[in-house]
Amino acid sequence: MRRPQIVLFGDSITEQSFRYGGWGASLTNTYSRKADIVVRGYGGYNTRWALFLLHHIFPLDSTTPPAAATIFLGANDAALPGRTSERQYVPLEEYKENLRKMVRHLKECSPTMLIVLITPPPIDEEGRKEYATSLYGEKAMELPERTNEVTGTYANGCVEVAKELGVYSVNLWSKMQETQGWQKKFLSDGLHLTPDGNGVVYEEVVKEFKGAWLSATEMPSDFPHHSEIDPQNPEKVFQQRCL
Amino acid sequence: MRRPQIVLFGDSITEQSFRYGGWGASLTNTYSRKADIVVRGYGGYNTRWALFLLHHIFPLDSTTPPAAATIFLGANDAALPGRTSERQYVPLEEYKENLRKMVRHLKECSPTMLIVLITPPPIDEEGRKEYATSLYGEKAMELPERTNEVTGTYANGCVEVAKELGVYSVNLWSKMQETQGWQKKFLSDGLHLTPDGNGVVYEEVVKEFKGAWLSATEMPSDFPHHSEIDPQNPEKVFQQRCL
Repeated sequence: MRRPQIVLFGDSITEQSFRYGGWGASLTNTYSRKADIVVRGYGGYNTRWALFLLHHIFPLDSTTPPAAATIFLGANDAALPGRTSERQYVPLEEYKENLRKMVRHLKECSPTMLIVLITPPPIDEEGRKEYATSLYGEKAMELPERTNEVTGTYANGCVEVAKELGVYSVNLWSKMQETQGWQKKFLSDGLHLTPDGNGVVYEEVVKEFKGAWLSATEMPSDFPHHSEIDPQNPEKVFQQRCL
Repeated sequence: MRRPQIVLFGDSITEQSFRYGGWGASLTNTYSRKADIVVRGYGGYNTRWALFLLHHIFPLDSTTPPAAATIFLGANDAALPGRTSERQYVPLEEYKENLRKMVRHLKECSPTMLIVLITPPPIDEEGRKEYATSLYGEKAMELPERTNEVTGTYANGCVEVAKELGVYSVNLWSKMQETQGWQKKFLSDGLHLTPDGNGVVYEEVVKEFKGAWLSATEMPSDFPHHSEIDPQNPEKVFQQRCL
């Protein structure tokens, strides 16, 4: 029996999602014996660059397209022009159009694919500055390369695209800011996630999956639970369940 | 470009390897953008029952067999006959023969597949008893259902089979006992692994993979690093690297 696949497509926050307490690892654990989690995270990528990978990661001629995919991009698109991370900057309207292209491509791969767009997390500008100072000392940028306000416009754009195209979304930017002290609780360097921050992504993604039809508790296990095996006659349950 | 796959085949210690600090999650992180880690862990299974899954998980007619596989079984085979976990017991000679069948099958799937046999971890009999008492109170078993000594004979059997068939092995049973206080440091209930115990498995498996040819640092990334992308001409590097 082939398990359904769930592909996590995104930037560094997806690439790092199997570190200690990571949201990708937690999803893998939750969907254990139900679905395979496939990580396709590319640190530093914006939507413009990620488009070049789309056909490679989601080939149109696949006979076994994923059952679900998360698209988690925008943190790099929202880098400010004229500042130190300018090379990653993508204008808001192009960001939205790139997300539309991705969703349309995934729907072309499989009309039933469950798609969840995840907005970038909020930015802790103080935390970004501390991080830059720890790396570059006095030479650290005087002006922020990302602001929470601008990243918020990308988060809104992401949610708008999801509504427009009828796919699911997680507004991580809003959700995280509901918690007092989100700056240090959820973000390790003002942008990337702490284990607690990973926990928020995990919970929100699972909630969307459940809200669709992809609930781990309701999916069949790939093979019999060990308690179903009769030690005197083990072949019986395997003959029933594995043909 | 299709990434090579590394399949983790085993019992609960493999199934739980994506929990907090789990060795499967750490492997996924290490082989990020290099190889896909596929978890095939079946809690409670012994080698006799796992044999029924072998052809399903490693079909002989696959055109894309895994590059590597870990086989991590024996903790359940080593349950003692006549005690509370008796249904899982498999005699030592049958355990060894079952491992041989698995290795031969994997080699038939792909003669170049890197195979690593992992022995069961040591047993902390005191920890098992505390765990049973926490679950069942006074009714908990008076006599241990597993002993460290008997599990050690299975660990030796596993290493012998690996040597006999010329595949790699990790003697987890020995390795863990080299550390003072291994009973609580590495085992959460006298059998399953703490995050530190997961760390030992992770390090030992990576060492074997490196000793073969499967070193993450020497494997190519699936797509260009973001620093290689020219923002004025992003298509260039993708045309060079993604065809």
